[in-house]
Amino acid sequence: MIYTYLGPAGTFTEAALMQVPGVDAAERVPSTSVNTALEKVRSGAADFAMVPIENSVEGGVSATLDAIATGESLQIVREVLVPITFVLVARDGIDSLEQVHTVSTHGHAYAQTRHWCEANLPGHDFLPASSTAAGALGLLDPENHYDAAICAPLVAEQNSLNILRRGIEDTAGAVTRFVLVSKPGRIPVPTGNDKTTVVVPLPDDHPGALMDLLDQFAARGVNLSRIESRPTGEALGSYFFSVDAEGHITEARMADALAGLHRISPGVRFLGSYPSVGRSPNATASVARHNTDEAFAEAAAWVARLKAHLG
Amino acid sequence: MIYTYLGPAGTFTEAALMQVPGVDAAERVPSTSVNTALEKVRSGAADFAMVPIENSVEGGVSATLDAIATGESLQIVREVLVPITFVLVARDGIDSLEQVHTVSTHGHAYAQTRHWCEANLPGHDFLPASSTAAGALGLLDPENHYDAAICAPLVAEQNSLNILRRGIEDTAGAVTRFVLVSKPGRIPVPTGNDKTTVVVPLPDDHPGALMDLLDQFAARGVNLSRIESRPTGEALGSYFFSVDAEGHITEARMADALAGLHRISPGVRFLGSYPSVGRSPNATASVARHNTDEAFAEAAAWVARLKAHLG
Amino acid sequence: MIYTYLGPAGTFTEAALMQVPGVDAAERVPSTSVNTALEKVRSGAADFAMVPIENSVEGGVSATLDAIATGESLQIVREVLVPITFVLVARDGIDSLEQVHTVSTHGHAYAQTRHWCEANLPGHDFLPASSTAAGALGLLDPENHYDAAICAPLVAEQNSLNILRRGIEDTAGAVTRFVLVSKPGRIPVPTGNDKTTVVVPLPDDHPGALMDLLDQFAARGVNLSRIESRPTGEALGSYFFSVDAEGHITEARMADALAGLHRISPGVRFLGSYPSVGRSPNATASVARHNTDEAFAEAAAWVARLKAHLG
Amino acid sequence: MIYTYLGPAGTFTEAALMQVPGVDAAERVPSTSVNTALEKVRSGAADFAMVPIENSVEGGVSATLDAIATGESLQIVREVLVPITFVLVARDGIDSLEQVHTVSTHGHAYAQTRHWCEANLPGHDFLPASSTAAGALGLLDPENHYDAAICAPLVAEQNSLNILRRGIEDTAGAVTRFVLVSKPGRIPVPTGNDKTTVVVPLPDDHPGALMDLLDQFAARGVNLSRIESRPTGEALGSYFFSVDAEGHITEARMADALAGLHRISPGVRFLGSYPSVGRSPNATASVARHNTDEAFAEAAAWVARLKAHLG
Repeated sequence: MIYTYLGPAGTFTEAALMQVPGVDAAERVPSTSVNTALEKVRSGAADFAMVPIENSVEGGVSATLDAIATGESLQIVREVLVPITFVLVARDGIDSLEQVHTVSTHGHAYAQTRHWCEANLPGHDFLPASSTAAGALGLLDPENHYDAAICAPLVAEQNSLNILRRGIEDTAGAVTRFVLVSKPGRIPVPTGNDKTTVVVPLPDDHPGALMDLLDQFAARGVNLSRIESRPTGEALGSYFFSVDAEGHITEARMADALAGLHRISPGVRFLGSYPSVGRSPNATASVARHNTDEAFAEAAAWVARLKAHLG
Repeated sequence: MIYTYLGPAGTFTEAALMQVPGVDAAERVPSTSVNTALEKVRSGAADFAMVPIENSVEGGVSATLDAIATGESLQIVREVLVPITFVLVARDGIDSLEQVHTVSTHGHAYAQTRHWCEANLPGHDFLPASSTAAGALGLLDPENHYDAAICAPLVAEQNSLNILRRGIEDTAGAVTRFVLVSKPGRIPVPTGNDKTTVVVPLPDDHPGALMDLLDQFAARGVNLSRIESRPTGEALGSYFFSVDAEGHITEARMADALAGLHRISPGVRFLGSYPSVGRSPNATASVARHNTDEAFAEAAAWVARLKAHLG
Repeated sequence: MIYTYLGPAGTFTEAALMQVPGVDAAERVPSTSVNTALEKVRSGAADFAMVPIENSVEGGVSATLDAIATGESLQIVREVLVPITFVLVARDGIDSLEQVHTVSTHGHAYAQTRHWCEANLPGHDFLPASSTAAGALGLLDPENHYDAAICAPLVAEQNSLNILRRGIEDTAGAVTRFVLVSKPGRIPVPTGNDKTTVVVPLPDDHPGALMDLLDQFAARGVNLSRIESRPTGEALGSYFFSVDAEGHITEARMADALAGLHRISPGVRFLGSYPSVGRSPNATASVARHNTDEAFAEAAAWVARLKAHLG
Repeated sequence: MIYTYLGPAGTFTEAALMQVPGVDAAERVPSTSVNTALEKVRSGAADFAMVPIENSVEGGVSATLDAIATGESLQIVREVLVPITFVLVARDGIDSLEQVHTVSTHGHAYAQTRHWCEANLPGHDFLPASSTAAGALGLLDPENHYDAAICAPLVAEQNSLNILRRGIEDTAGAVTRFVLVSKPGRIPVPTGNDKTTVVVPLPDDHPGALMDLLDQFAARGVNLSRIESRPTGEALGSYFFSVDAEGHITEARMADALAGLHRISPGVRFLGSYPSVGRSPNATASVARHNTDEAFAEAAAWVARLKAHLG
C-alpha cells in the first residue's frame, strides 16, 4: 500500500496520516500540492491520499474542494481530525523574541498566528513560505536570512529545531479536518454515525434554486454538517456546493435524498459515505419515525403492491 | 355486470351512469343512499357504483367522501361530469307560476335554485324531499299537496311530467362530478391525462403538518385539482384530507409522492388512478424535466450503482 | 340588543345562543336560514346572529362558510361549543320502539343517528324535515302521519314531548361549534388564547399555490385549527379556503401572516379575532422566541434604523 | 478624501480603485493587508477602503469576508468588477521562455496561471511573493535570484517592466469583484438594479436551519447572487453566511426579508445596499406582483385598518 499526502514531511497532514491504522507499515510519499497528491491516486501511483478539507478557523480548503469536485472521480473513505497548534522555531543562537525580526511561514499559518506575532514581535517582517515545514527547515539553510519560522510541532520535533514558544495560535482549540481519498471502490460499511459528502452544481439561479437542493435533505430529516459554496470558474455567481450530510448512502433517507439531488442537478457527484469522527448530536438514533429505513421500506412496499394491480 | 347508483331513477346520478360505455346493456339498480350503493359493491351485490363526489357550486359530497374513506377499501375507476340544470315541473292542471304555492325538492337542489324561486315564486313554501326524483314523482300521487317540484330534466322526460320552466338554476354552468367505484382490482392504464385520488389523515396538528403532506406533491411538481378537508368524527380539529392529484400511479413522480405520503401518514388510502375528463392544463406533457419518469429512473439507477460498491 | 339565530326555537343553535352572557335579557329572533340570519345583521334588523360553523362529525357547515365568505363583510366576535346529543320523541300514545314505523328529522340529524335507527327501528321509513325542531313539533299536528322524530333535548323539554330514548347519536361526544356574528366593528381584545378566522381565495392552480398560502402561517409558527376548502361556484377546482388560525391579529406573527396572505391573495377576507373556547395546546405561551411580539418589534426597529441612513 | 486599498500599488485592487469617479484627485494610500485597510477606515485614517471580495475562479476572498463580518460595523457603498488577466514579466536581459527557471508571484496568481506555467515553463521553480506587485518589482532588485514574475498589467506598465507574455491566465474571462467600504452612514439611493449584502450567523444546526434563513429571501422572491459559508472559528460546523441579495433595503420585499432574518438570527449584520454592476436578469423590473412595494404597502394598510378596530 502506498499513501501520499500533502507534504512536505512534518506538516499537519502527515500528522493526520499517522492516525490511519496500519499506515506506519506502509509506504508514505509526500506530494507538493493537493492536486499532485490526488493525481497520484488517479494514476495508480498511490492507493490513498491524505489531504486537508476544512479548517475550523480558515474554513474550507479551496484547493481540495475544487480538485476533488472535478476530473476523474475519487472517493473519501475516512476522515481525520487534527488539533492545530503552532510553535515558533528560531535559527540556532536566537533565544529571545527580541532577536526575531523576520518570520517565515505559510500564509495560512501566518493568518492563524498574526495577532500573536503583532503583539509579541513588534515590527517584524513576514516572508511567505511554500509550506510551514519548508519555512521551518529553511532555518537550517545558512543562505536564508530570516530569523524564525512558524510550524507544526511535528516538524520541529522530527528535526530537533530550536523552539522559542509553543501554542502561539490566536484561536485555541482550532481543528483541521483531513480526508483520506481513494479511487471509487468499496464504500465503508455503515456504523450508525456516518457522513456522506457530495458535490452539487447549482442548476440555475432562479430564486430558491439552492433551497430546492437543500430541501432534498431537509424534507427527509437529513442534517448537514458542512456546506461550502465554490465558484465553478465560469462566471461570478456560478456556483457548486460541497456538502457533508449526516448519514450513510445505505440508509434509505440518504439514498432518497441523493436520488432527489440527482433529479434536480444531474451533475451531482458522490464523494463517499464514511464514519464520522466525533459523536454527532444528529446521528442515526435520533431519526424521526417517518425517515427511518422501516418507514421507507413500508412506503415502497405499499406503492409496489398498489402498482401490481395495473389493469 | 351489475351497476348500482344513487337513486332513485331519473336523478343526475343515473344520467352520469348512462355515460359509461356498455351500461345500457347491463343491469342498473338504484340505491337509496351513497352508503347503500357502496355496500353493494363491497358485498358483491353489484360490480360498480356510480356516486356523486364534487359539485362546482355545493362543493364536495360529504356522504361520498366519508363513505369511501373508511370501511373496506374501494377503488375509483372512472370519473364522469354532468352539467347541472334544473326544471320546474308542476302537477297537471297548473300552467303558470302564479299557481305554484308549495315546491318540493331535495335540499341541495333547492339551495341551487333558491334565488330563482324567491324571485319567481314569491311567498312559496318549501317542502324537503328525499331526492329530486322523489319530489317530482310525488306530483303523480294525489295524496301529496304540493304544486310543483324541482328536478333533473331526465326524470321529467322519463315520466312525461309537466315542465313549467327549464334552466332555473341560479348558477349557470354548474357541473357535478361523479365517480364509478369498484372493489380494488385492476387500475386503469395511464392515458397521459389522469387523476389519482387519495385520502390522507392529518398526522398531528403541529404548525405545518398539512404543509408536510402537500409538500409531497409540490416538491415533485404534482398539481392538485381538488382538496377537501373532512372531520374524522373524533374531535373538532381532527381532519382527514381527500385529494385529487394530477397524474397516474405508474408515473414516477406520483408513485414517489405517494410513498412520501405513506411515510408521513401511514394511514393514507389510495382510491385509484383513472383518466381525467376534460383536458387539464397541467397534464403529463408539461412536467418539468426533473420530475419526469426518465429523471426518476436515472436518479434511481445512479444511486443503485453507487450502493453496489458497498465494502 | 337583538339576537337572531338559525331557528326554529329549540334547536342546538338556540342552545348555543343561550350561552352568551346577557342574552336572556335580550330579544331573540329565530331565522329560517343561515342566510336570512346573516342578512338581518347586515341590514341592521339584528345586532348579532348565532349560526353553526363546524360539526365534529359532519364537518364544516357549508351554508355558513359560504354566506360569511361573500356579500357585505361580517365579523365573528365569539365562538360557542355545544355537545350534540339526540333524543327520539314519539307521538302521544306510542311508548315502544316497535310502534315506530316512520321517523322524521333534518337530514343532518338523521345522518348522525342512522346506525342507531337501522339497528333499533328495522324497516323504518325516513321523512326529511326542514329542521329537527320542525320534525319534532310536527308530531303535535294530527295531519302528519309519522310516528316519531329525532331532535335536540331542548325542543323536547320546551314542548314536553314524549321522549322514547335519549342519547341515540351514533358518535358519542360530538360537538358543534357556533359563531356569533356582528357587523364589522370592535375586535375583541386578546386573551392569550384566541383564534383568527379568514377566508382566502386560492390565487391560481399552479402546483403549490395552496402551500404558498399555508406557508404564510407556518413560516411564522402560527398553527391552524381548521381548514375547509369550499368551491367558489365558478368551476370545478376553483376554491377558496376558510381557515381558523391560533392567535390574535394584535399579535405580531398573526398580523404579519395576514399581511403575507394579502399580498398573495388580495381578496383575503378577515372574519375576526376572538377568544378560543377550550385550552389550545398551541396557545400564545408556547410561541418560539423568533415569532414573539418582541422578536418582530426588534426586527422592525432594526430595519427602520438601517433605512434611516438612506443617502 | 482619503482612499486606501489592498496594496501595493499596481495590483488589481488599485486598478479597481481607479474606476471610482473622482478618485484620481483624491489621496490614495496602499495598505499591506485587507485587515489593515479596513482598520484605517474604522479609525478614521481613511474615508474609504477598496478590497477584493469575490473572484470568479478562486471564489470568495476569505480575508475580506471575515474582516468585514466582525469588529466595528462597516458598510459597502460600491462594487467594481475588474477583469483578471496576467502578464509574465522578466528580468532585463531575459527575452525567451527558455531562460525562465524560477518564477515568483502571489500564491493566488500562481493558482490561476499554473497550467500555463507547467506547459510553457517546464521544470520551473515557484517562489511565493507577498503580492503580485512585490514579485514583479523584486525583479528590479539585483539581490533577488528569480528570473520572472506573474503580475497585473498595471504594475508592469507603471514600472515599464519587460513583458514576455500577456494573457497567461488559465481561465479566460476571469473577473474579480471589489467593494468600496466606508463607515456606516449614507446608504446609496436605489437605482432599480441594486444589491444588498448581509452576514448571517447560522442560529443552530437542526436540519433545515439554513433553509429557514434562505426561505426569508425565497418566500419574498428575492434572488441571491452570492452565498458563501465561512467558519465562525469556534468549532468545525459552526458557520456564518455571507450573502448578496438582489434588491435594495428601501424595497419592501428586501426590508421584509431582512426583518425575517433578524428574527431568526438576531446577530445578522447589514453590510449595505448599493448599485449592481452589470445588468442582472432578476432586477427589480421582474418582481412578481405580490412582492412589489405596492403589494406590501396595500397589505400593511389592510392590516392596519383591521387593527384600528380593536375593541
